Amino acid sequence: MSWTLRTADLDDLARGAALLGTGGGGDPFVGKMLVAQALGEAGEITILDPEELDDDAWVIPVAQMGAPTVVVEKMPRGTEPELALITLERHSGRTADATMPMECGGINSMIPLLVAARRGLPVVDADGMGRAFPQLEMETFSVYGISASPLAMANEHDEVAIFETGSDNSRLEGLARGVTSRFGGMAHIAQYSMTGADVKRTAIPRTLSLALTIGRSIRASREQRVDPVQALVDSLSDTLYGYGRVLFHGKVIDVDRRTDEGFARGSVRIAGVGDEELEVQFQNENLIALHSGVLHSGVLQSGVLVAIVPDLICIVEADTAEPITTEGLRYGQRVAVIGIATPPIMRTPEALAVFGPASFGLDRPFRPVETLEQPVLAE
Amino acid sequence: MSWTLRTADLDDLARGAALLGTGGGGDPFVGKMLVAQALGEAGEITILDPEELDDDAWVIPVAQMGAPTVVVEKMPRGTEPELALITLERHSGRTADATMPMECGGINSMIPLLVAARRGLPVVDADGMGRAFPQLEMETFSVYGISASPLAMANEHDEVAIFETGSDNSRLEGLARGVTSRFGGMAHIAQYSMTGADVKRTAIPRTLSLALTIGRSIRASREQRVDPVQALVDSLSDTLYGYGRVLFHGKVIDVDRRTDEGFARGSVRIAGVGDEELEVQFQNENLIALHSGVLHSGVLQSGVLVAIVPDLICIVEADTAEPITTEGLRYGQRVAVIGIATPPIMRTPEALAVFGPASFGLDRPFRPVETLEQPVLAE
Repeated sequence: MSWTLRTADLDDLARGAALLGTGGGGDPFVGKMLVAQALGEAGEITILDPEELDDDAWVIPVAQMGAPTVVVEKMPRGTEPELALITLERHSGRTADATMPMECGGINSMIPLLVAARRGLPVVDADGMGRAFPQLEMETFSVYGISASPLAMANEHDEVAIFETGSDNSRLEGLARGVTSRFGGMAHIAQYSMTGADVKRTAIPRTLSLALTIGRSIRASREQRVDPVQALVDSLSDTLYGYGRVLFHGKVIDVDRRTDEGFARGSVRIAGVGDEELEVQFQNENLIALHSGVLHSGVLQSGVLVAIVPDLICIVEADTAEPITTEGLRYGQRVAVIGIATPPIMRTPEALAVFGPASFGLDRPFRPVETLEQPVLAE
Repeated sequence: MSWTLRTADLDDLARGAALLGTGGGGDPFVGKMLVAQALGEAGEITILDPEELDDDAWVIPVAQMGAPTVVVEKMPRGTEPELALITLERHSGRTADATMPMECGGINSMIPLLVAARRGLPVVDADGMGRAFPQLEMETFSVYGISASPLAMANEHDEVAIFETGSDNSRLEGLARGVTSRFGGMAHIAQYSMTGADVKRTAIPRTLSLALTIGRSIRASREQRVDPVQALVDSLSDTLYGYGRVLFHGKVIDVDRRTDEGFARGSVRIAGVGDEELEVQFQNENLIALHSGVLHSGVLQSGVLVAIVPDLICIVEADTAEPITTEGLRYGQRVAVIGIATPPIMRTPEALAVFGPASFGLDRPFRPVETLEQPVLAE
């Protein structure tokens, strides 16, 4: 069902979207500020349910691209994603009937809202990642045959770039990444333009609704003084992401993070009870969670897999369930790590070939989070 | 006066253009092959004198961009510059009445001929460098107010990129250079689209004619068994490049060349009579010629300047006057080094600010080659 987004919803939506960003997808504060300013003028935004979208409607997704470590230090002007959309419209000779997120995240669930508020367009309640991923070709759009070309990019100096690279979406990613670096580490993009029929076929549906549901449950549980982390997990049960559980509780004891080839890469170590540790490795987003191991029949099993991409690995503050992005990780934080199962459309062999563990250089096969046992401390 | 170019002229034109390329501008063999093939079908190409160009004609220059060290190993398919031109036409909504070189050189005097032969367009007898330079903003077009934006780029996979960066032509160069690297070290470009009136105001006129004159004089002197190096220098006297002289004769004893940030950078040392040496430093093109020094009143003056950019420093085979590109330099070659004065339009303060010595990191001011004395060996 389509619905109307108002300024009062932004806090909840941004928080829920940041959680689905699994450490990436941008800082929710910046995204929220930009939309709030634009919404102050436009009043409200129509969020279109994908099933209510005309088959021949023309949808142009928009997003911000760049290393999160840069994005938190460089506030967008707010006109960039609109310029990217207009540039793509002009290039293709076809205007957008709606815009849409490419991924979930504190910034990238917001950027389409910003464009929508400024252009008077509706936003489709769906996206192409169902979470955040670090690269442009890691989209269900791409997996199921939508070309990422043409791509339009824009920056705060009103500089624009357009790429046409045929069907090789991975190659386009490399070209756009190079321009993003030269744009100063951040660009705004419009690409994967497609019909309403293609949205229904290839997108993860209702992820804006899901983000709002998650954000509301976190806020309500805080107000009601019940455990917000458990409330968050419970709120998933009626959604496409039916399974979630708390993987680990502990304190951040080490963060290794570097900005490399336009990405934030690294890992975080979290100390739990006794000698237990959880290590989460990330490339913009959290990719894999490894338990330090348990004694099992007197033998130490180390590096036990508890969750792996594309399943969601979300790190939140233990007492508030506030999502923590990879660039927000700090020594001493008390955190909970949550694993969430991705929808079936993201676990097909063709989907795993694009954004499964091997796409990130991980040498373990994908295993659904709901099939992985929690290591047990005691003998 | 406008004239007609035929296949029989190509050898002379390519050789003369390679000389004006001052070590860069691409390999004449590759460029000639591409045009000969296209001309075989089209028969002939009209070379338009800039003065005969309508003021409101629309001219789109085309070129190849990349490190010469890559270009000699990667033959273009031949469709790339045409695709760049078409892409720019589509983007701007204005079709070309003529094309034009952006620089002189073995490749870049030929690329517009290739496009002209394939599209049935005339080529304007002028360019924006009057020689070759390594960067896109080093154009008299740019110096005298023509925007390099929009820029279209194409490669052999029919991938295209378009950039719009406003008036900052130097910034555009950086963006295009990054895409060129990701295209595999070579791209074909269309940019600096302008009216006929702007061509007359900003271009170096009749450089295709000049290249043909130089090439013919070299061939004629070889046939007549007179010194082709001297014939070459003599052929300049009636042209816009009125002054030229042989700076040095000798043997190549050292070549230091690396491909760095998409450029061929390095230097060549040439040993002459006795202990005399000439060092020529280059970035794609030859930039500065320094004499090892002479005893003057018993004191050794080392690093004596004999020619500096934007004046032309051309290295040719001593016995045939065949131009040698920077990537063609080899130990043991017997060479002559020729200095040629650039036209006044390239020596204004605003021109020197864009392609004078400081633009290449050289800490010496420009001094016209005709004012620099030849070091004399004897005491």
